[in-house]
Amino acid sequence: MPLVRVTNFAISLDGYGAGEPQSLEAPFGHAGMKLHEWRFATWRPGAPNGVDALFGRQYDVGFGAEIMGANKFGPPGWQDDPDWRGWWGEDPPFHTPTYVLTHRPREPLEMEGGTTFHFLSTSPADALAIAQEAAGDLDVRIGGGATTVRTFVAAGLVDHLHLAMVPLVLGRGTLLWEGLEGLEEQFHIESVVAPSGVVHLSLTRRSPDA
Amino acid sequence: MPLVRVTNFAISLDGYGAGEPQSLEAPFGHAGMKLHEWRFATWRPGAPNGVDALFGRQYDVGFGAEIMGANKFGPPGWQDDPDWRGWWGEDPPFHTPTYVLTHRPREPLEMEGGTTFHFLSTSPADALAIAQEAAGDLDVRIGGGATTVRTFVAAGLVDHLHLAMVPLVLGRGTLLWEGLEGLEEQFHIESVVAPSGVVHLSLTRRSPDA
Ligand SMILES: NC(=O)c1ccc[n+]([C@@H]2O[C@H](COP(=O)([O-])OP(=O)(O)OC[C@H]3O[C@@H](n4cnc5c(N)ncnc54)[C@H](OP(=O)(O)O)[C@@H]3O)[C@@H](O)[C@H]2O)c1
Ligand SMILES: NC(=O)c1ccc[n+]([C@@H]2O[C@H](COP(=O)([O-])OP(=O)(O)OC[C@H]3O[C@@H](n4cnc5c(N)ncnc54)[C@H](OP(=O)(O)O)[C@@H]3O)[C@@H](O)[C@H]2O)c1
Repeated sequence: MPLVRVTNFAISLDGYGAGEPQSLEAPFGHAGMKLHEWRFATWRPGAPNGVDALFGRQYDVGFGAEIMGANKFGPPGWQDDPDWRGWWGEDPPFHTPTYVLTHRPREPLEMEGGTTFHFLSTSPADALAIAQEAAGDLDVRIGGGATTVRTFVAAGLVDHLHLAMVPLVLGRGTLLWEGLEGLEEQFHIESVVAPSGVVHLSLTRRSPDA
Repeated sequence: MPLVRVTNFAISLDGYGAGEPQSLEAPFGHAGMKLHEWRFATWRPGAPNGVDALFGRQYDVGFGAEIMGANKFGPPGWQDDPDWRGWWGEDPPFHTPTYVLTHRPREPLEMEGGTTFHFLSTSPADALAIAQEAAGDLDVRIGGGATTVRTFVAAGLVDHLHLAMVPLVLGRGTLLWEGLEGLEEQFHIESVVAPSGVVHLSLTRRSPDA
């Protein structure tokens, strides 16, 4: 059965998935690229084929659709700009139908490389049903940001999360853990530290009879 | 030179050092003993002599004094009880002069086994100077809770922290990370995962010329 998964979601030691304030110039706020450098490092020539690379490479394997939040799709106010087409240029790295949750939906945007952005104002469960229909036999990725991830997890809709905990303290931004008290009762939690210092957490939903 | 250290300070994935509400019946609030079970497990006969045991055993090595916060010493309201002598019975596990920071200090309490509780209402720096004087050539432990640890870290008074991050989400309680934005600039951060699932973080103050 296809799964609903979060992969390569980066957080700080104190649980922030992005800094603040988010803007066109600073999509991750004061966090800059710090939460993502470990992954960029795996793309450099000669980079070790180790823990970071293995997790990083999972990013786009097996997905037939993505769901993301409005604040991942663009900076505050993008809804007022009819020409905003996302951060990622004409060939975004999703290559699947991609559902943007926003209270101000617009017409779909067909990009190159298989990505089509659809804009939805609906409940997490309904958005997921739509994305699963599009994904067919493949998994659905909950792509972030933190608000969207925690909403879907709290609603019991996520089967697996891979979180990359980066050894820094952001102090402010959007929090992942809020509202997830007792998550360990629903998920088996396994961790491994990469030589980069990143702690990779794999959270796997416990089966009801385990 | 003697150091100022935090050892075996347990936090949840979301950074809480204790749950809530704290009371005589529930010293750690809704967290119960969950943050500490990994350490108790190392005391059982036949327990592995591995990562958890090695870190756990550091708890009392090399210290000549401890500083703790009022909320570690007793449940809310202990200051109104002239007979309160701490949670630990007549032979507390400190075996050194132990300084309790409280806005309502009282006379010192001499316990068995080398522990004497002194009660101080003073700044972190002054409390540390007093504890260091008592500790002589030995280190001073900042013993918690989270409020006291983060206050001393924020004041630049701590050389080394060992944090045990337990794989659970508490959701509420006293937060360790608050006010520590950018901690990675001051501390080298190394992590290792024990087979129990606990992530042991070692934070070592960077030397000024490194
Ligand atoms: N750490 C990582 O690995 C990672 C991954 C992805 C993104 N990010 C970063 O995370 C940040 C964004 O995260 P975030 O937590 O601020 O926000 P987000 O999850 O991207 O978006 C939240 C917003 O989406 C809209 N939304 C969510 N659910 C909805 C629903 N059911 N119906 C209609 N609208 C809904 C609402 O916006 P409106 O009310 O305005 O429509 C809501 O405020 C960005 O900086 C992004 O770059 C980080
Ligand atoms: N996770 C662990 O490994 C660990 C370790 C130790 C303790 N704990 C737990 O942590 C909890 C307590 O933590 P907490 O963060 O709530 O509180 P805490 O750090 O133990 O105590 C804070 C209190 O100490 C007093 N205080 C602090 N600095 C002071 C100063 N400079 N001068 C005068 N008074 C000062 C103030 O109390 P007043 O104003 O009331 O005097 C303040 O509210 C307890 O549940 C304890 O069992 C956990």
